[in-house]
Amino acid sequence: MTKSYAGRDASTGSIDDLHGDVAVDEVELAEELLGAADATASDDVAAYALRLGDDALILAQQLGWWISRAPELEEDVALGNIALDLLGHARSLLHYAGTASGRTEDGLAYWRDEPEFRSAWLFEQPNGDFAHTIARQLFAALYFEALYSRLRDSADETLTAIAAKAVKEVAYHVDHAEQWMLRLALGTDESRRRITVAIADLWPYLDELFRDDELIERLDAAPEGAIAARPSALREPVMDAVAGILSACELDAPTVPFAAGGGREGRHSSYLGYLLAEMQVLARKHPGASW
Amino acid sequence: MTKSYAGRDASTGSIDDLHGDVAVDEVELAEELLGAADATASDDVAAYALRLGDDALILAQQLGWWISRAPELEEDVALGNIALDLLGHARSLLHYAGTASGRTEDGLAYWRDEPEFRSAWLFEQPNGDFAHTIARQLFAALYFEALYSRLRDSADETLTAIAAKAVKEVAYHVDHAEQWMLRLALGTDESRRRITVAIADLWPYLDELFRDDELIERLDAAPEGAIAARPSALREPVMDAVAGILSACELDAPTVPFAAGGGREGRHSSYLGYLLAEMQVLARKHPGASW
Repeated sequence: MTKSYAGRDASTGSIDDLHGDVAVDEVELAEELLGAADATASDDVAAYALRLGDDALILAQQLGWWISRAPELEEDVALGNIALDLLGHARSLLHYAGTASGRTEDGLAYWRDEPEFRSAWLFEQPNGDFAHTIARQLFAALYFEALYSRLRDSADETLTAIAAKAVKEVAYHVDHAEQWMLRLALGTDESRRRITVAIADLWPYLDELFRDDELIERLDAAPEGAIAARPSALREPVMDAVAGILSACELDAPTVPFAAGGGREGRHSSYLGYLLAEMQVLARKHPGASW
Repeated sequence: MTKSYAGRDASTGSIDDLHGDVAVDEVELAEELLGAADATASDDVAAYALRLGDDALILAQQLGWWISRAPELEEDVALGNIALDLLGHARSLLHYAGTASGRTEDGLAYWRDEPEFRSAWLFEQPNGDFAHTIARQLFAALYFEALYSRLRDSADETLTAIAAKAVKEVAYHVDHAEQWMLRLALGTDESRRRITVAIADLWPYLDELFRDDELIERLDAAPEGAIAARPSALREPVMDAVAGILSACELDAPTVPFAAGGGREGRHSSYLGYLLAEMQVLARKHPGASW
């Protein structure tokens, strides 16, 4: 991960460059995160990128809460790093999504209301205790890994580039979640009890990740080649991986029904509103962050 | 920065390694952050390392608050990275401090009460608006840079190693803070007004950073060579650097009196209690993080 300190390189900054330049430099972001290519997304591709970007953004915010609150300093660092990786994915995807309508990444993050967010319900489920965060993290990381590994073959070059970078990072997120699963499930009676409850609580939100809809059909049938990783094609690899780790943890798969979901159409659980309020309050108070 | 995901390497983890291993692996931390050397600190060196570690820990927690709350996604990432750097410094320093008394880094972070913390008042001052965070960050980063660059010449090899790693990271923190100072001071009337207020509000807490006391005298006169970077020796370089950036920002140095401070003896402002409550609640609820 290349560090971004306000996205600027110490060697190139000068007072002249900075004078009055309080807004985000979107061109620089494009170069930094998307490579030289700064393509404009079609409306459908933008809608798809928005779903992926919102998933990453919402989960990043949830994980950020743990910084300085995790049960170990080591884990503060781990969850913080994962949150920053996800924020990076979100920025790339939202930037690309915004090219279709001329909106910036910050515009999309801070100036949309709840029904305009396209994240799946899994990501807005609360942090709960640490076991809930780990169970959510397991499902999320396995989903992202399956998604981005397939999206590397997208017919859309920008999505391919974003996926190629992201897939390396989410491999570590998978490893982190799996190791914690083992530690909790095979640890004490209490830790095993908690992770069992957490897996059952998060289980209903898996199904939504694997649902195709009209947008996916259009992107998959695009004349220039399939652009999206079909959600339905992710079901088997993700559920197989989940089954594998549950087996290693000597846990049974829950038999709870799936939740309705609806995040891809802007219908959200009650949790998202609170998350957005916290995330957006400062930016909305000071539009453009320019005071 | 090397990433730490629960401090484990994907290539070496196995179920056997992990079974029942819920506690932090302090040996691994020592190798990871302190190099091969795992020396035991004397009581005086431990007390010094504790001061430095607490400074970094408290500031890291404050900055972590901004993740997903900063006015730009880009800045979420920047402040998050800085927070993680500081957490890394804190872990190294607290680990070393703990060697004198057989306590772990987590034991020191989560199981001390307010009067046992040795951080200076600057670091516990509230985030305030974004300008306050940047003003605090400017003073803190310039202080850390002067401190760690001198501590590289410490007669204590562990402190030398920690300082050599930290000084590279805090150079970026200085750059980040200086660039924001310029953007705010030379931006709009409102941003200039806010950063002017913030600099004046944080100014009283600079003096405490430069005060020698008996511990420093003993460490400086150690028969094996000076171990500490004398706080009084940091005053001139830090204040010169502060004056330089204020001049570039076309701001005058405030003429407000210095605060009493007392953090090095465990006397704290009212803010630290809230910070510690938030940081420690989870670890204390589940001792050993082992449920």
